[in-house]
Amino acid sequence: MGNTFGHFFRITTFGESHGGGIGVVIDGCPPRLEISATEIQAELDRRRPGQSKITTPRKEADSCEILSGVFEGKTLGTPIALLVRNQDTRSQDYDEMAEKFRPSHADATYEAKYGIRNWQGGGRSSARETIGRVAAGAIAKKILSQVAGVEIVGYVKRIKDLEGVVDPATVTLEQVEANIVRCPDPDCAHRMIELIDQVRREGDSIGGVVECVARNVPKGLGVPVFDKLEADLAKGVMSLPASKGFEIGSGFAGTLLTGSEHNDEFYIDDAGEIRTVTNRSGGIQGGIANGEAIIIRVAFKPTATIRKEQRTVTATGEETTLAAKGRHDPCVLPRAVPMVEAMMALVLCDHLLRHQGQCRVL
Amino acid sequence: MGNTFGHFFRITTFGESHGGGIGVVIDGCPPRLEISATEIQAELDRRRPGQSKITTPRKEADSCEILSGVFEGKTLGTPIALLVRNQDTRSQDYDEMAEKFRPSHADATYEAKYGIRNWQGGGRSSARETIGRVAAGAIAKKILSQVAGVEIVGYVKRIKDLEGVVDPATVTLEQVEANIVRCPDPDCAHRMIELIDQVRREGDSIGGVVECVARNVPKGLGVPVFDKLEADLAKGVMSLPASKGFEIGSGFAGTLLTGSEHNDEFYIDDAGEIRTVTNRSGGIQGGIANGEAIIIRVAFKPTATIRKEQRTVTATGEETTLAAKGRHDPCVLPRAVPMVEAMMALVLCDHLLRHQGQCRVL
Amino acid sequence: MGNTFGHFFRITTFGESHGGGIGVVIDGCPPRLEISATEIQAELDRRRPGQSKITTPRKEADSCEILSGVFEGKTLGTPIALLVRNQDTRSQDYDEMAEKFRPSHADATYEAKYGIRNWQGGGRSSARETIGRVAAGAIAKKILSQVAGVEIVGYVKRIKDLEGVVDPATVTLEQVEANIVRCPDPDCAHRMIELIDQVRREGDSIGGVVECVARNVPKGLGVPVFDKLEADLAKGVMSLPASKGFEIGSGFAGTLLTGSEHNDEFYIDDAGEIRTVTNRSGGIQGGIANGEAIIIRVAFKPTATIRKEQRTVTATGEETTLAAKGRHDPCVLPRAVPMVEAMMALVLCDHLLRHQGQCRVL
Amino acid sequence: MGNTFGHFFRITTFGESHGGGIGVVIDGCPPRLEISATEIQAELDRRRPGQSKITTPRKEADSCEILSGVFEGKTLGTPIALLVRNQDTRSQDYDEMAEKFRPSHADATYEAKYGIRNWQGGGRSSARETIGRVAAGAIAKKILSQVAGVEIVGYVKRIKDLEGVVDPATVTLEQVEANIVRCPDPDCAHRMIELIDQVRREGDSIGGVVECVARNVPKGLGVPVFDKLEADLAKGVMSLPASKGFEIGSGFAGTLLTGSEHNDEFYIDDAGEIRTVTNRSGGIQGGIANGEAIIIRVAFKPTATIRKEQRTVTATGEETTLAAKGRHDPCVLPRAVPMVEAMMALVLCDHLLRHQGQCRVL
Repeated sequence: MGNTFGHFFRITTFGESHGGGIGVVIDGCPPRLEISATEIQAELDRRRPGQSKITTPRKEADSCEILSGVFEGKTLGTPIALLVRNQDTRSQDYDEMAEKFRPSHADATYEAKYGIRNWQGGGRSSARETIGRVAAGAIAKKILSQVAGVEIVGYVKRIKDLEGVVDPATVTLEQVEANIVRCPDPDCAHRMIELIDQVRREGDSIGGVVECVARNVPKGLGVPVFDKLEADLAKGVMSLPASKGFEIGSGFAGTLLTGSEHNDEFYIDDAGEIRTVTNRSGGIQGGIANGEAIIIRVAFKPTATIRKEQRTVTATGEETTLAAKGRHDPCVLPRAVPMVEAMMALVLCDHLLRHQGQCRVL
Repeated sequence: MGNTFGHFFRITTFGESHGGGIGVVIDGCPPRLEISATEIQAELDRRRPGQSKITTPRKEADSCEILSGVFEGKTLGTPIALLVRNQDTRSQDYDEMAEKFRPSHADATYEAKYGIRNWQGGGRSSARETIGRVAAGAIAKKILSQVAGVEIVGYVKRIKDLEGVVDPATVTLEQVEANIVRCPDPDCAHRMIELIDQVRREGDSIGGVVECVARNVPKGLGVPVFDKLEADLAKGVMSLPASKGFEIGSGFAGTLLTGSEHNDEFYIDDAGEIRTVTNRSGGIQGGIANGEAIIIRVAFKPTATIRKEQRTVTATGEETTLAAKGRHDPCVLPRAVPMVEAMMALVLCDHLLRHQGQCRVL
Repeated sequence: MGNTFGHFFRITTFGESHGGGIGVVIDGCPPRLEISATEIQAELDRRRPGQSKITTPRKEADSCEILSGVFEGKTLGTPIALLVRNQDTRSQDYDEMAEKFRPSHADATYEAKYGIRNWQGGGRSSARETIGRVAAGAIAKKILSQVAGVEIVGYVKRIKDLEGVVDPATVTLEQVEANIVRCPDPDCAHRMIELIDQVRREGDSIGGVVECVARNVPKGLGVPVFDKLEADLAKGVMSLPASKGFEIGSGFAGTLLTGSEHNDEFYIDDAGEIRTVTNRSGGIQGGIANGEAIIIRVAFKPTATIRKEQRTVTATGEETTLAAKGRHDPCVLPRAVPMVEAMMALVLCDHLLRHQGQCRVL
Repeated sequence: MGNTFGHFFRITTFGESHGGGIGVVIDGCPPRLEISATEIQAELDRRRPGQSKITTPRKEADSCEILSGVFEGKTLGTPIALLVRNQDTRSQDYDEMAEKFRPSHADATYEAKYGIRNWQGGGRSSARETIGRVAAGAIAKKILSQVAGVEIVGYVKRIKDLEGVVDPATVTLEQVEANIVRCPDPDCAHRMIELIDQVRREGDSIGGVVECVARNVPKGLGVPVFDKLEADLAKGVMSLPASKGFEIGSGFAGTLLTGSEHNDEFYIDDAGEIRTVTNRSGGIQGGIANGEAIIIRVAFKPTATIRKEQRTVTATGEETTLAAKGRHDPCVLPRAVPMVEAMMALVLCDHLLRHQGQCRVL
């Protein structure tokens, strides 16, 4: 049951990096939503490898087909199944991985748990698995936008020690997509790209932090005490490959302030709405959205698969070394942006439908 | 459905800070486990306020009663209901809160969501709600210990900018409980206590970081792709009151390393087991436990309720100020330690029973 | 996880027939509903044994306490915990059951599954477990009534081969409660009571059929393809002790008709609503309520515990005989009526909140 | 969330009768099970229309493709996605249904709930939806057989008033498949076939009862109090199209006996096992399997779509008449046999894995 996420806008993903295909079934989508494969494809293209010199060069067409749940361009309220075929050009690059466990990858733990694994390209543990999430996230975004005008914008906040200056209150998708590293601070983006390119040439990899903001989230979303909005967001993004940390609002830095410095004082705005002067809470108080922007950050470790030689063991228990063959992905951060956005959209859409019901929201 | 956590060792908590009582129903506990109210009480006493000068002075007896699921000292496999009565000495300290929303507290969002709230002492959003979690966690810990020898030890790693030096591989419960701040670095603990006491006198509050380690976790726990162990741990601790961030293993700091620096190389130990030289993964790879120690960190913000005057609004939409009356809790960190341990125990026990089934584990 | 029912109006029951008490936690109840222990008690009193000469003479006060979720007479939207204390007058009547398995009771299977059981009065498998369901059902009924004017009326349709004539379109609670057997056909009720009394004197037991109708159910409740309304109703009532069969609408008898005889033709009523001329569908088509009365029937077998001697075995594997001591319950049907009503209310309320959301329904 | 069934062997189905395809995702399948598309296809072929003169003549190839979760002929423990393409030969037979609601079909309720429907051939409410269930059931059967030697055999017990004589203790798949009506009583089968053929020529339809037995079910499966085995079985089969009633063991007929006649007395068999002399309980006591054969019966109403003219209404609220065009399915019973078997296998497999865990069962 580990492959289902959400309760009201519920997705179930399937597929390995090699095999018939990757996909998702979305259960609970409101009826009568206009949706096309083209719109979903646009998000998948952002997630796709091989977009630029700084991402993994694996060429994946990732063409999305709608199998069910849509009739004459509109959702039926029935399950929407989306399928992306794999193009099984099985490379000899993977042969060594049939025998050797990649350090800090999931090879060894899958073998320990299941006693079997699809060693071609990581199988189910491949980042390719996120295709289903991103496709479903595209639909979640559209619902959130149509029902409540919610805007979700993610971006690369930091690569290794290079941190961009970004205003979450105003940043736009256009600014993010203006460069290949998806950091809307142009100067910093330039340095990030150079760093990634250098690390790529060294056969190594680097990580960083994605920040993601949701604006115009309706007050009242989130359910105490376990399904608090930040708890569901944390689960969502910490289930992404390579994520190592999660923050909401002030996060770890907030622990350096006193309560009187940290608390968000209330005021009444011109429209008579209760607002907060600051937003260290990150848009959530007591697990429930307060109407301010929801801001999260996710730490991604450097990619595990590198071309530098490392000490490892074989499936049969012998010590050996491994240096990954072929080209590799030196930094997952640019592609992680649409993944984080998708998880945020899935969580918010799930809580929106929990709040309002599936059939009455549109 | 937001008050249930876990699937196989499933807890449902109930209760507000004022009213009949606080409690939990545990569904899925293995049969034939020896358990007594005394054992559960021991964990509740660690969570209880009023233990020392640096915690909230509210005196709560928090006496635990087993209502069901135990027969002649052993679990039946049926739901275990635990109840802690409230002692409703309703203080006039709360009267002001009927009208005024405390900044950065859940008062305003509960009102927005439900159109009603129990304003006495925070109601359902009170940290008192965690009694049910800690009580259930005591049973989860015992199962984990009996079935697999799992040890869970949490401790205060940092208070504001005071950080202790602790070795997660060897730290013991006795070292943690040796001082009232629950930091097993005695020198640092001394300074932490002084700082908290000073902040308390100022009517302010401070936050920090709890670190928690689980040793001897069986390989194979955790289910890709959404119910990864780190995802469930993140959800668990991010549902605790006042938590703002979560890390596993290297966490945010790990993003400053390259892949070749960060990866955990494998070797074969003397027993023929696959092990990792380092543990930046924090005991989990691909969402599945690899047998190394699982290490998490949780950021807790400074407590929202302070005696310093702050700007706020009333439930009827007027701007005003609020300075909490009576004594307050200057730092939740020492009491957060058993809460984090409980959530970690609940997640691991849930995955243990998912792996082995309820009835065959003991 | 077997002790939770429903998703949006979700109940978790706990308790054995002997021990601290029996209860339920209700998660998802809409906020601001006026509710009192007195209202819940009224339903519990209908379920209670010892009401008349034809039910089990066990005297149970079954006094209900609200532990949480209600503040100043209104629901908070937080979990509502209800507790009914057991009055542990442990009778020597049960001593023999510590050793001997009652035929067609759950003693042997609980022992096989859990390796332990509370043999006093049936433990968790006792009909006393249904207290939690009936208490929660009382709240579900109130929500259904307030939100949509739904009326749920159950009654004894048949005892052994004595079948009453009842019109589900018009039958009222008052007619049902007018006699101790809860059959709103007075003549038939008279004969049923005589039959039960005779069977009681013989130390034997008899079963029958409960019919239950829900009127004014909003069109559109029910979710294809697995959570069809009739599927959830079937699960609900088939989880009641002693139930052996379930029917919706025409049921098994409908299989004797041809399609042209069985189909419910449509027409437009004076209000312009689509209606059906007949109601063999029982108010549900394709798993979704069509606005007509929902009619179900549940078969209950004769009570397993009887005073007549029967062949059985001991827990240690020896053949023996057993004749239950003390007085017994010759017919569960009258008390099963509020149980079936409760399950129907729980299912309909769950689907109502699924359709409309928790917080906006009132 | 209505399109997911089961918790541990969890299936999510998708697809309408017209559109891209029909399929299922199975989450929780044990790893290292040998499985091929050919084995699954064999079960699909039993479910397929057009097998004989007495079923619907719609020609469906229903060719099954495994998209994921299987590697080199063995399951990976990851989700198994199965897809059957639709062959969209959209017939003009359906044109009238775009406007007119078929009596006792789901057309009107889907429209009421979703405000939209795929009117081609019934869309999601078509019996074609059961392809996903039957495909998943084929895998569930194989697991049950390999792990515990469980045998599941379903058959037509009754068509209208023609009832076969069948011994559930000994009936075999071969006997069932020996005739096109799937009734293992050859004489009765002959009369059933004649009756169906006659009704077909009249443009009408008939229903009946499917009986299904599971032998060698391990003691201890089933979880009180809501997830009792009979409750989950009831939900499973009552979610099948056209089902109107469910029985376990003695069912409704059992209500005509006294307790002393109905109870299953215990004895010790030659192997020292606790057994029951009779099996009116139908293999389940207290919601838990007792090791005897599990026997259920399901009532299926006559098919709603008939060629005889009937009174109905249009989507725009006008009264009219409808006589379905083209050939129709006069009796769903023969094809319902593999559907009931599949639901029984899914429930039993879910409880088997709940009992033993996913990864340790094979």
